[in-house]
Amino acid sequence: MGVVKKIAVLGSTGSIGQQALDVVRALPDELKVVALTGDKNFKLLERQIKEFRPKMFCSSAKPDVSYGGQFLPLHEIASHPEVDFVILATVGKAGLSAALAALRAGKTLALASKEVLVMAGEIILREASIHHAQILPVDSEHSAIWQCLQGEETKPQRLLLTASGGPFYHYSQAQLDEVTSEQALRHPVWKMGKKVTIDSATLMNKGLEVIEAHWLFSFPFDSIEILIHPQSIVHSMVEFTDGSLKAQLSWPDMRLPIQYALFYPERRPNPELPRLDWNKINSLDFEPVDYDRFPCLKLAVDAGKSGGTYPAVLCASDEVAVGLFLSHKISFTDIAKTVQRTLEQHRNVSQPSLEDILAADDWAREYAARLSSPQSRNTNGETILQQRDNR
Amino acid sequence: MGVVKKIAVLGSTGSIGQQALDVVRALPDELKVVALTGDKNFKLLERQIKEFRPKMFCSSAKPDVSYGGQFLPLHEIASHPEVDFVILATVGKAGLSAALAALRAGKTLALASKEVLVMAGEIILREASIHHAQILPVDSEHSAIWQCLQGEETKPQRLLLTASGGPFYHYSQAQLDEVTSEQALRHPVWKMGKKVTIDSATLMNKGLEVIEAHWLFSFPFDSIEILIHPQSIVHSMVEFTDGSLKAQLSWPDMRLPIQYALFYPERRPNPELPRLDWNKINSLDFEPVDYDRFPCLKLAVDAGKSGGTYPAVLCASDEVAVGLFLSHKISFTDIAKTVQRTLEQHRNVSQPSLEDILAADDWAREYAARLSSPQSRNTNGETILQQRDNR
Repeated sequence: MGVVKKIAVLGSTGSIGQQALDVVRALPDELKVVALTGDKNFKLLERQIKEFRPKMFCSSAKPDVSYGGQFLPLHEIASHPEVDFVILATVGKAGLSAALAALRAGKTLALASKEVLVMAGEIILREASIHHAQILPVDSEHSAIWQCLQGEETKPQRLLLTASGGPFYHYSQAQLDEVTSEQALRHPVWKMGKKVTIDSATLMNKGLEVIEAHWLFSFPFDSIEILIHPQSIVHSMVEFTDGSLKAQLSWPDMRLPIQYALFYPERRPNPELPRLDWNKINSLDFEPVDYDRFPCLKLAVDAGKSGGTYPAVLCASDEVAVGLFLSHKISFTDIAKTVQRTLEQHRNVSQPSLEDILAADDWAREYAARLSSPQSRNTNGETILQQRDNR
Repeated sequence: MGVVKKIAVLGSTGSIGQQALDVVRALPDELKVVALTGDKNFKLLERQIKEFRPKMFCSSAKPDVSYGGQFLPLHEIASHPEVDFVILATVGKAGLSAALAALRAGKTLALASKEVLVMAGEIILREASIHHAQILPVDSEHSAIWQCLQGEETKPQRLLLTASGGPFYHYSQAQLDEVTSEQALRHPVWKMGKKVTIDSATLMNKGLEVIEAHWLFSFPFDSIEILIHPQSIVHSMVEFTDGSLKAQLSWPDMRLPIQYALFYPERRPNPELPRLDWNKINSLDFEPVDYDRFPCLKLAVDAGKSGGTYPAVLCASDEVAVGLFLSHKISFTDIAKTVQRTLEQHRNVSQPSLEDILAADDWAREYAARLSSPQSRNTNGETILQQRDNR
């Protein structure tokens, strides 16, 4: 048994945060929660604080708990001497400064928050390298690739990210136009937060994962491919130069990649984690991805290839568009249109500073929101987004 | 680029031997054949000798070549100072003394000949350990497991050996009784020698692989499972203590595991090796194995568990029975019966010496042959094997 690992769970009230706490509950002898942070779900955060009694906590308002824990800002928690291991599971760009603080303090950073690497991959990797801090993947796909790369001495040839395809993978274009947010929130395999569930349905999520994989594994975009695999049992694959592939498989359960990161390079038995039952698995299905019906995927990969501030604009405009779709202001297929138009109008900054990235994020949010706002209507009553549609 | 590896290919005229030479042809800058040995296929051996000009060679008769190469016995070649790396791809027990000679000389031994570990696993592993010699798997299943184990620091929980199931996997018992050797020699996926093709159809081959895996990976029999996978693309899997699995995949081609062993722990690009094309793979199918219709599998696993001289008797009686089946003397389902009756009549020697093992092999060959010999007919004209059938 190793030393007890002191963990900060940033974003503990979200889906990944809650599952990280499940792993701690299952393996309490080796893991200790020293910090919890949430946003607006105060009730849950308070319950978590009462259960784990962390030394530090943070949320958008000071929670009503009194036992000696300290209320500290996110970046102070991420870099605090009491913390060994930071699980970053915040939503959106909130985690960016916390990630940088953790890396600059030399912490091991388990990254569940996609935006961090997508928006600022170059800066994040540079800081990790300067401060000898490790970045560990938590996404099931990246964890799969990481597991498959263990012990391999020769750089692989290709990464194959699998994608469930989401609930609408076989919908026609016309059917996609009619998808409601209620339908989109019902993901066939994974239980996740709302934003990532919608991103899964548009395949934007897979596009963000391609950008993440590019940074995590220093892999060129052209050698990262997507394969539709509806069962989500093969979490990704790596193809080597000799034609051999390795795949990582498991029942879809985020606690596994979280636990793998926590104990890497070792593994721990955890009876809570489900086992694959080969009496119930008759086949694992695969099909090539259709970029045409799911334009978000190509938008993301292109933004990743272009680099600069484009990926930040991609993330920000997508976050706005998903919000508008969830509140019934735009249609499902308008999400991609909103992102595309925002990207088209963006003036890229190459080799951006963190300030450039945050400025691009601000601009994109405003621009994307304006595209479908009532104030943008023309004399026919159409918003900018609709006008574009009719061209 | 590393140093040139000096290779002895023992059994170079067999299927694995020929494919090993294909790998040398594809990567001539790093591999040099210094020894070739065959048995009775003199024509092919002579062609190979003319092409590769090895320093040493061996066969059941001295081949007609004159260029300065030396004719030496198998065990002298296996332990020769000029040899770095021995690929053992002989058929049957012929490789046993060569394997021991190679290990005692501290050579790296790539094992394609199943019988070596099945018959004498304990002795082979002891000698490898004493002389710090490495044993590397060449079978596609064991190579898959070995690849999946790279970089893993925690002992896995379970090995899942995949089996194509052979050509008759969905045959009824009555259909199996009628199978001809011509049908059995048509394996749906792999092109192999006759003996291993029949062993694949009876699943004896998979049973031998379970015993081999037990020795190669020091794994208890109860944690080694078989999974039918008709496409033979997933070559085997490893399940870890956290519920994660790794699988190795490739187009079925023995050159890949041969090459992997030759360059381990590195990999080499080889344009001759086929690539998986995911545009053509729609699904990978799996089903649990049926021990009842394929009794050879259970006979093998039980012999492995019992240990002693049982596995040698299993191998020897199977070799005889397969020979009898190929020459139309017994039926397909008689193979298992012959092996079973021979095992039942065997007096086991636990912790056997090499001599004990070879004696058991001799006894089993004689006994198995006698079971269906015309001399064993009773007054009704039935052989011993048929009498047993009618009980």
